[in-house]
Amino acid sequence: MNDSITVSTNQLHSYGVTALKSIGMSEQNANIVADKLVLTDSWGTFTHGNKLLNDYLARLEAGGTNPIGQPKVINEGTAWAIVDGDNAKGQIGCNYAMNKAIELATSTGIAYVGVRNTNHFGAAGVYPAMAAEANMIGIAMANDIPSVCAPGSLQAVMGTNPLAYSIPAEKHPPILLDIATSTVAGGKIYAAMQRGETIPKDWIIDSNGQPTTDCSLYPLKAALAPMTGHKGYGMALLHENLAGVLTGASVSWQVLNWIFDDQTKPTGHGAAFIVINPEVMMPLTKFFKRVDRLIDEIHDAPAVDEIEHVLVPGEMEWKRREAALIDGIKLPPDVVGKLRKLDKRIGINPDWLS
Amino acid sequence: MNDSITVSTNQLHSYGVTALKSIGMSEQNANIVADKLVLTDSWGTFTHGNKLLNDYLARLEAGGTNPIGQPKVINEGTAWAIVDGDNAKGQIGCNYAMNKAIELATSTGIAYVGVRNTNHFGAAGVYPAMAAEANMIGIAMANDIPSVCAPGSLQAVMGTNPLAYSIPAEKHPPILLDIATSTVAGGKIYAAMQRGETIPKDWIIDSNGQPTTDCSLYPLKAALAPMTGHKGYGMALLHENLAGVLTGASVSWQVLNWIFDDQTKPTGHGAAFIVINPEVMMPLTKFFKRVDRLIDEIHDAPAVDEIEHVLVPGEMEWKRREAALIDGIKLPPDVVGKLRKLDKRIGINPDWLS
Repeated sequence: MNDSITVSTNQLHSYGVTALKSIGMSEQNANIVADKLVLTDSWGTFTHGNKLLNDYLARLEAGGTNPIGQPKVINEGTAWAIVDGDNAKGQIGCNYAMNKAIELATSTGIAYVGVRNTNHFGAAGVYPAMAAEANMIGIAMANDIPSVCAPGSLQAVMGTNPLAYSIPAEKHPPILLDIATSTVAGGKIYAAMQRGETIPKDWIIDSNGQPTTDCSLYPLKAALAPMTGHKGYGMALLHENLAGVLTGASVSWQVLNWIFDDQTKPTGHGAAFIVINPEVMMPLTKFFKRVDRLIDEIHDAPAVDEIEHVLVPGEMEWKRREAALIDGIKLPPDVVGKLRKLDKRIGINPDWLS
Repeated sequence: MNDSITVSTNQLHSYGVTALKSIGMSEQNANIVADKLVLTDSWGTFTHGNKLLNDYLARLEAGGTNPIGQPKVINEGTAWAIVDGDNAKGQIGCNYAMNKAIELATSTGIAYVGVRNTNHFGAAGVYPAMAAEANMIGIAMANDIPSVCAPGSLQAVMGTNPLAYSIPAEKHPPILLDIATSTVAGGKIYAAMQRGETIPKDWIIDSNGQPTTDCSLYPLKAALAPMTGHKGYGMALLHENLAGVLTGASVSWQVLNWIFDDQTKPTGHGAAFIVINPEVMMPLTKFFKRVDRLIDEIHDAPAVDEIEHVLVPGEMEWKRREAALIDGIKLPPDVVGKLRKLDKRIGINPDWLS
């Protein structure tokens, strides 16, 4: 069995870059992917950080993801663009698209950039965080092969189709939410499975339409439950349309499962990014003051004894990151196990992983 | 006690226009408000239709809403605008803003229009429906005085801050979702109260942070529960920022409750509209085909025996509307009661209401 390991963000980043370059990715692209994965782990979102590296590399090696792909704009207008991700690692096309959206919104006030021919893009929150860094509001959405029921369906109808957004502030760190439209993300089911745990009965639905606590049924013999029934299902459908239908990407069952389906084929995922630039609408200092005041009000709300104050989305994550940059990231056993499995294959053997 | 009454959409519309004109609203504005309320009732969304007319008129008569308000753009750029709603009835400013967003997105591909100085705008779904009518994707968001808890809070922290969207198709009616970010909208609590019913225990939280089935505690001594905890809370916060913070509207506790607070004062609500024009990105016929195929796939998914097929958001509502345009709308007793109460005051005495 594996124990937790504490590693510095630099060490982890350097490991990711080396691993990705080992299968032929360019230095620049490997840096982008490693940036996103380390950022995600530093937030404590371990289901979507370097834990994924092993499966990312498997698909890159098999040819299903293009290690030297170069995304480009294939169609654009005043406040929008469609990007072909060239089947490069999802983070490459989506990083490119978010930068394009930020560039467009700088003058237009709002921009939509859709991406086709991409694949698993990691934690959705890393892209809105780029917008917040540029003092803009960022929204990210993606589609995926169905793994979530709709009310009344006996099998999956929609992907977990996440939504993430970020809103910059001044006194406080950016508001940052990253949610799947299912009750929980599929990664949490896999994590429970790897830890040998059972799961709450509102997480998945078996093929008779009944709730079950047996996570081993997922994803082949069970589907995730949508959050609050028709609400999560309806939101997933919005994301499917903006990320899949409108971009020309694969849609719904045409998307491949990036872990379980043929590793030699592109998954065909789509993603969508919306950026709003508050600075064209009001002085940035005024905007920040208004966001900060709202956060202060939430912090001041009466709370149960167990917590210091009511949290704003992302608050816990930014605090964890602040600590991680000083003390390193304590990778949980399941992440360590995945990295050791990867390293057995590629043989980088960093001291901290041994 | 009141029974249900079946009324034609024309009769109901004409009643609304007459009622609104009786307190000094212009013919044009009264028509817009009546359009939205009848559309909402024809969908079967009775909590947000003509049931509201009595309370709308009360605030209009008291001066808290401006019967002759004229919304206007007070700031705009390439793909965005900020509208001052002139404290006209919410439907007036928001109808104006959605039209402005459609106009902008026609060439820019996407547009954001925010509204300040507005008030209760009825069912959020009526605005995206305008975009779908124009073959565009429409999204609506609004803020409201807090009535919903955040995880760990002992009192309301966010409004029910709804999200609605619509996506046009060709073979099928537009996809149309309209949801509150609470487990249920406040209107459903009031409806249960008026019907003397208890409510499920996941709908509201009392002032000790405990679930309760006593709907009479709401809104003064209980708050709504957010959908799926941090997810609904996080979405409400996004809507608060786009509809309230960014528009210059009142935010959170600065918004007045449009029913219970001082009827002589503006409520200060904000709203936000995003419109995306698919036609600039791909041929409209291709876009429709892709949306229709997705809907077909959902309809074909295996479903529980109790239903004909898995529904797409809005499907039930458009079917009800189709029937309502032929057979009339069967207003439930609580709506009839509210209309009779109103009519006692304004004395229009239409045959169908007697």
